[in-house]
Amino acid sequence: MKILVISGPNLNRLGEREPALYGTATLKQIEDTLKNDARKLGCELVFFQSNHEGAIIDFIQQSGHTAAGILINPGGLTHYSYSLRDALADSGKPVVEVHLSNIGAREGFRRHSVIAPVAVGQVSGFKAESYRLGLEALVRYLGEPA
Amino acid sequence: MKILVISGPNLNRLGEREPALYGTATLKQIEDTLKNDARKLGCELVFFQSNHEGAIIDFIQQSGHTAAGILINPGGLTHYSYSLRDALADSGKPVVEVHLSNIGAREGFRRHSVIAPVAVGQVSGFKAESYRLGLEALVRYLGEPA
Amino acid sequence: MKILVISGPNLNRLGEREPALYGTATLKQIEDTLKNDARKLGCELVFFQSNHEGAIIDFIQQSGHTAAGILINPGGLTHYSYSLRDALADSGKPVVEVHLSNIGAREGFRRHSVIAPVAVGQVSGFKAESYRLGLEALVRYLGEPA
Amino acid sequence: MKILVISGPNLNRLGEREPALYGTATLKQIEDTLKNDARKLGCELVFFQSNHEGAIIDFIQQSGHTAAGILINPGGLTHYSYSLRDALADSGKPVVEVHLSNIGAREGFRRHSVIAPVAVGQVSGFKAESYRLGLEALVRYLGEPA
Amino acid sequence: MKILVISGPNLNRLGEREPALYGTATLKQIEDTLKNDARKLGCELVFFQSNHEGAIIDFIQQSGHTAAGILINPGGLTHYSYSLRDALADSGKPVVEVHLSNIGAREGFRRHSVIAPVAVGQVSGFKAESYRLGLEALVRYLGEPA
Amino acid sequence: MKILVISGPNLNRLGEREPALYGTATLKQIEDTLKNDARKLGCELVFFQSNHEGAIIDFIQQSGHTAAGILINPGGLTHYSYSLRDALADSGKPVVEVHLSNIGAREGFRRHSVIAPVAVGQVSGFKAESYRLGLEALVRYLGEPA
Amino acid sequence: MKILVISGPNLNRLGEREPALYGTATLKQIEDTLKNDARKLGCELVFFQSNHEGAIIDFIQQSGHTAAGILINPGGLTHYSYSLRDALADSGKPVVEVHLSNIGAREGFRRHSVIAPVAVGQVSGFKAESYRLGLEALVRYLGEPA
Amino acid sequence: MKILVISGPNLNRLGEREPALYGTATLKQIEDTLKNDARKLGCELVFFQSNHEGAIIDFIQQSGHTAAGILINPGGLTHYSYSLRDALADSGKPVVEVHLSNIGAREGFRRHSVIAPVAVGQVSGFKAESYRLGLEALVRYLGEPA
Amino acid sequence: MKILVISGPNLNRLGEREPALYGTATLKQIEDTLKNDARKLGCELVFFQSNHEGAIIDFIQQSGHTAAGILINPGGLTHYSYSLRDALADSGKPVVEVHLSNIGAREGFRRHSVIAPVAVGQVSGFKAESYRLGLEALVRYLGEPA
Amino acid sequence: MKILVISGPNLNRLGEREPALYGTATLKQIEDTLKNDARKLGCELVFFQSNHEGAIIDFIQQSGHTAAGILINPGGLTHYSYSLRDALADSGKPVVEVHLSNIGAREGFRRHSVIAPVAVGQVSGFKAESYRLGLEALVRYLGEPA
Amino acid sequence: MKILVISGPNLNRLGEREPALYGTATLKQIEDTLKNDARKLGCELVFFQSNHEGAIIDFIQQSGHTAAGILINPGGLTHYSYSLRDALADSGKPVVEVHLSNIGAREGFRRHSVIAPVAVGQVSGFKAESYRLGLEALVRYLGEPA
Amino acid sequence: MKILVISGPNLNRLGEREPALYGTATLKQIEDTLKNDARKLGCELVFFQSNHEGAIIDFIQQSGHTAAGILINPGGLTHYSYSLRDALADSGKPVVEVHLSNIGAREGFRRHSVIAPVAVGQVSGFKAESYRLGLEALVRYLGEPA
Repeated sequence: MKILVISGPNLNRLGEREPALYGTATLKQIEDTLKNDARKLGCELVFFQSNHEGAIIDFIQQSGHTAAGILINPGGLTHYSYSLRDALADSGKPVVEVHLSNIGAREGFRRHSVIAPVAVGQVSGFKAESYRLGLEALVRYLGEPA
Repeated sequence: MKILVISGPNLNRLGEREPALYGTATLKQIEDTLKNDARKLGCELVFFQSNHEGAIIDFIQQSGHTAAGILINPGGLTHYSYSLRDALADSGKPVVEVHLSNIGAREGFRRHSVIAPVAVGQVSGFKAESYRLGLEALVRYLGEPA
Repeated sequence: MKILVISGPNLNRLGEREPALYGTATLKQIEDTLKNDARKLGCELVFFQSNHEGAIIDFIQQSGHTAAGILINPGGLTHYSYSLRDALADSGKPVVEVHLSNIGAREGFRRHSVIAPVAVGQVSGFKAESYRLGLEALVRYLGEPA
Repeated sequence: MKILVISGPNLNRLGEREPALYGTATLKQIEDTLKNDARKLGCELVFFQSNHEGAIIDFIQQSGHTAAGILINPGGLTHYSYSLRDALADSGKPVVEVHLSNIGAREGFRRHSVIAPVAVGQVSGFKAESYRLGLEALVRYLGEPA
Repeated sequence: MKILVISGPNLNRLGEREPALYGTATLKQIEDTLKNDARKLGCELVFFQSNHEGAIIDFIQQSGHTAAGILINPGGLTHYSYSLRDALADSGKPVVEVHLSNIGAREGFRRHSVIAPVAVGQVSGFKAESYRLGLEALVRYLGEPA
Repeated sequence: MKILVISGPNLNRLGEREPALYGTATLKQIEDTLKNDARKLGCELVFFQSNHEGAIIDFIQQSGHTAAGILINPGGLTHYSYSLRDALADSGKPVVEVHLSNIGAREGFRRHSVIAPVAVGQVSGFKAESYRLGLEALVRYLGEPA
Repeated sequence: MKILVISGPNLNRLGEREPALYGTATLKQIEDTLKNDARKLGCELVFFQSNHEGAIIDFIQQSGHTAAGILINPGGLTHYSYSLRDALADSGKPVVEVHLSNIGAREGFRRHSVIAPVAVGQVSGFKAESYRLGLEALVRYLGEPA
Repeated sequence: MKILVISGPNLNRLGEREPALYGTATLKQIEDTLKNDARKLGCELVFFQSNHEGAIIDFIQQSGHTAAGILINPGGLTHYSYSLRDALADSGKPVVEVHLSNIGAREGFRRHSVIAPVAVGQVSGFKAESYRLGLEALVRYLGEPA
Repeated sequence: MKILVISGPNLNRLGEREPALYGTATLKQIEDTLKNDARKLGCELVFFQSNHEGAIIDFIQQSGHTAAGILINPGGLTHYSYSLRDALADSGKPVVEVHLSNIGAREGFRRHSVIAPVAVGQVSGFKAESYRLGLEALVRYLGEPA
Repeated sequence: MKILVISGPNLNRLGEREPALYGTATLKQIEDTLKNDARKLGCELVFFQSNHEGAIIDFIQQSGHTAAGILINPGGLTHYSYSLRDALADSGKPVVEVHLSNIGAREGFRRHSVIAPVAVGQVSGFKAESYRLGLEALVRYLGEPA
Repeated sequence: MKILVISGPNLNRLGEREPALYGTATLKQIEDTLKNDARKLGCELVFFQSNHEGAIIDFIQQSGHTAAGILINPGGLTHYSYSLRDALADSGKPVVEVHLSNIGAREGFRRHSVIAPVAVGQVSGFKAESYRLGLEALVRYLGEPA
Repeated sequence: MKILVISGPNLNRLGEREPALYGTATLKQIEDTLKNDARKLGCELVFFQSNHEGAIIDFIQQSGHTAAGILINPGGLTHYSYSLRDALADSGKPVVEVHLSNIGAREGFRRHSVIAPVAVGQVSGFKAESYRLGLEALVRYLGEPA
């Protein structure tokens, strides 16, 4: 069971970027930890990060059909990328949306996700843990979809 | 380490209430499962459910100071109860907000949580799993607050 | 055939409360008249009034499954109680919403009912008559649902 | 005691038009049933239906002064016809507004009635029954105005 | 020099309709007075009143090319009739908009005129005088357009 | 195969009305050209133009059941006539909406069509061509509905 | 009978200021013409112009009680000066609001007058004529208030 | 002369709750100080605090008729409880609204009070002093109502 | 201890201006009463009233540094004068905002104060008493700032 | 005569992506059909599809000057890409906007096109046919621009 | 070449007023530095500061015709003074708007300038430097207008 | 001291693109002029232009840490790219935002910059000069940050 783990713009900067909001773990560290978790959950992860909306859509189109589900932190694209939303919906795979900071507790524009309506669920606010919890949620969902 | 697990209006009806949205587990079953998880995570849970906004606020005031954190599914109060929000903020304890359905993907009014700005983070959309993941997130946060 | 007749906050004050808007009949008098009507319509009424949102939700949960339908004047809760809305929807029974004054002709906030989307229909503006007409409507609907 | 019963655009299509929303009775059948009810209530009905806003206003101006009250289902004009609203207000007669579907539970634009502020009350959601209940309400109101 | 004097829905009711707002003069009296004024101003008037938006548009199309200008009280159509607005603009003649009551001092919806952007100017609030002043303004404008 | 071709208020003025926006062809010329196109497409056209919202609704009700589809340029009614919208939806026939000017590029109010949600599709901005393209689109759709 | 004729900010620049919008007459010329008109109407005018909101309010307070009515072109203050509005209302005298350009046909912000709700009526769009017509309207109103 | 002094949700927590915003005095201390003030002002106080909207409404209904006026700090209910508003209006007694923090200087939602339109006046921002000043204001008002 | 007592536009008209809203005391009488109160509270008052926004700002700049605090009724400037707001904030002194009428219970525009965010607190609705209570509040605050 | 035919994000997925909305033809099939049409219309097509906003802008800049016009389906970029809008406007070539689904009949955000104001016209709702009709419209426009 | 350098309300307080936002230079110092710059740029400066909207408008009217351009920091007037805007537009001279703080990064109301639409350009956020850069920009523009 | 000079989508087209708005200088010419200025200001410039949001973010991430500050004209991205905003904020370097046209004086959507809240300041409206002035501002700021 393969799962795509996608990180949007600026998330390659984790660890250095406003640690109070986003935590001190680098994306590499988060991915390494996730790999461990994945092993226990019996699934394989394919990681992808890009600052390019188009590259993320390309990746979803090329890898989506081989995957069981998608874990995505859309970064800043969360708030305006209807193109990304369409790509996720079009993949036909369950999507879990994660955010490191609690987007419901920040500036007005961050409270609105254009991705949420095409996702199964959302985890936000727990820094690196958001990824891990999102992965668990996705794997359980795949075992027992609603 | 004690954690309050609070469920708002209508959540005592879980299992019978729109299972497609909220899942088939009863609140009792969710709580039993959570107790197991809590044991592994090394914490003790105090459960509380009420259809009364006031009773939930009373409970937070009476039990909040003995607890390390609060896990709450505010139900319909999510969207208007500034009184509950004030009670949670006033407790001074970390709050994790959970929802069984993905509130970001439903009617307009459900997309806005007045509770979110006083929470550490949010888990939504995974039915009974939302509680379990929220508990994990809260316990980790307590071990390592941001 | 049992029907729940629920009156929200401040409706126990009918007869004394702004009679120009709400009429001169007391809630007791309205209920007595309704009982007569019910006898003719071949149904039994269970009355409930409370100023507590939570108590109304409790009542719906406890009595809803024994009833064929619900007649409700939600009072001030009409305009914000998503918790009451969820309880009514969750009951699975047809709901008729009544108002003594014509809420469409008053202050801006009174024109918006968060209850309406889960109701079969609405009667407003006819003072005590709104209850009686709403009961008739509900009984007919139960005989011949759409 | 004469009462005008006015039906707006597209209501001559009742019976054929989206029966799930509007019921299976034709306007003719509704009017025949209403005539029976009227006899019992001791009043006479004058029916009028038109797809023309102007024709309805003409009718109200010509017949309004001979009538005791007006029962109206404004159809689509409900949501924008300030001209119809002015005609109804100008008649000086009590107006009862009826709708076959529950306009409070449909698309956003249907939730707002520009007619409501000049009406005594409203009945909506009970298909053909909405007319009958509205008539009863109007006759009672005329016997005992608030 | 011919001028069209057009009165929209319900203005045939002047004199009887809410005199506090609209004055005690009937439309006939207003028109007779206007005729006198017109004689002095050296112009001829063609009067038209209808409760039908379509009939007013027909009239503008049929008579507009023979007229030097248009004086119009659009009544309730003021607030929504983009069709009337298009007809007035299409006539290519200067339009003066008049209102008997001061629409800027009434309900919110009356403060917005969809006709204003295609008019030369507006006179409102002076009851029958609004027509007379509007006529004077139009005649002057025709003598000396801006 | 019969198709209704309906033109709303002020469209009888085409050719004379703001040619920069609406083109130089008269409605008669547009209809003659369309008849030729129809012959090639194997369908028959019934033309109707009116400045009266009510007359257009009457026509749809009377002719709709004999037609395979409806091509409509609602003119100014596009922006507020929920009555026309209801008539089109009620006809049960596929509707194609056309506009001579590009309504998405004009004043704010012209960008919102209350008709669009009940149409199959829309063609706007190509002056007389909008009709012809809309007809083609409708005939193809009738051959192969989605 | 004394009437105050007040002109707000920038109106001392008339004649030089955007003549296409405001006309070519200077304020002095407008006032001279008005004096003639006043003589015929049997009233005396007191002119006041200032670019200072406070000076206009001072003037209204000092001269208002000696005057029968107030004719005012509030200039840019039209759109925000609640202080001027309060001064006019406080004077207890009938107020007529005039504008040289048609404020209903210009930028969005110009369409909203905070002065209108305390005025008897409004004349706008006729350049210098707006003053003259407003004076006539005011004098008539004083002879025959509504 | 009896006065009801009502404190809404979370105000029993005063002294411990965000002292920078709400002050260091406990509710008990505020009430004791108020009692002293009351003695000087010649009135008697009845205190009531609850976290339950319904309990506050019950109290107003039961004690309102024996009281001369009501001093209320509605806490979080300020911003949404139309039920509380209706209860206060229904009491027929003068109401003074107090807030410990300056609600006009905080988050957007706190700037809007649904209680204000049924109150005589408001005191906010002076912590415990707000109660004392509000009491003084109410007693004076009762001596000399506007 | 010196305190500035500033009254904005139209407040020199107190006593004559809509007494039902603003009371019957003149500003002079209010100031005389305040002087008495000030003596008891051990402070000295400097009064200033102007209809000129600029003059009030000049006064704050010239006298602000010699004062301990500012009591201000901004009148109509309350709702738009960001310049006054900046002047008050710039003074660095505690500001108490008072209103004679209850601005939270009046027209929509009066409910929004642009001054509130730079004030310590607000007293509104108690006519002349609002000044006295505001003074007390300010003096206490100066003795014991939060 | 060369025409650019540009398809935005996710349109390479046509045929597989929600066929009920977007049709069963692949982009390749649409392009092949278009080529045939182009031959008849006497023009040459240059196709471009990308999921990258930037790549589409690059293409417009590089190929725009060699083309007579642009046919574009901007996909999800329709609703937010002001950069794409600027590129199209900057090209100086006539632009026709096409959509496979009827964007005026879908979710709120899809009803607003930021591209429309720089386009000659729009065709939407006819699946693959939208491209073909748009091409025809563009070629005619180029032959006979408005 | 003469240039007017105008500073609005509270700017005479520079140096003392919130230095973190507005810098430590006094207005006198800024003006002295500007004079040096002006000498190099070959132009003469006329300085004017006032807390009075009216005085600034007077100054623009009196000095505008002798000047080549206007450099203005409107202070708090930026956000509401349509009167100042009209005065600047009426001067017919190029206007450059400067702000010491970055108004696009502050409270919501500060992000909207009613002056911007009549200005050539804007410089904001560089404290005293904003004036100097604005002067340079204006002088260049005068040498080479767009 | 190195400074990044970044130009967003379509700015490589300067010189050809709507010269009335954006000037006649090409980006190359602007950059050459800037290099001269930079030499005088003692700093080195690194230029970057792209039509790709992602490429600009990549560049900021790769070069940001070696630079002292960033000068950016975000082009169309100004109005929606929260991803770019996050990248700029994350760089930790002072950002100056420049625009060639005066965005405060154009279409509604152009008046709102999502970049402004993370910038030190903004220069807009002076065509090529905006870059030069922005550079000066940035260099001064770096010498003497606020």
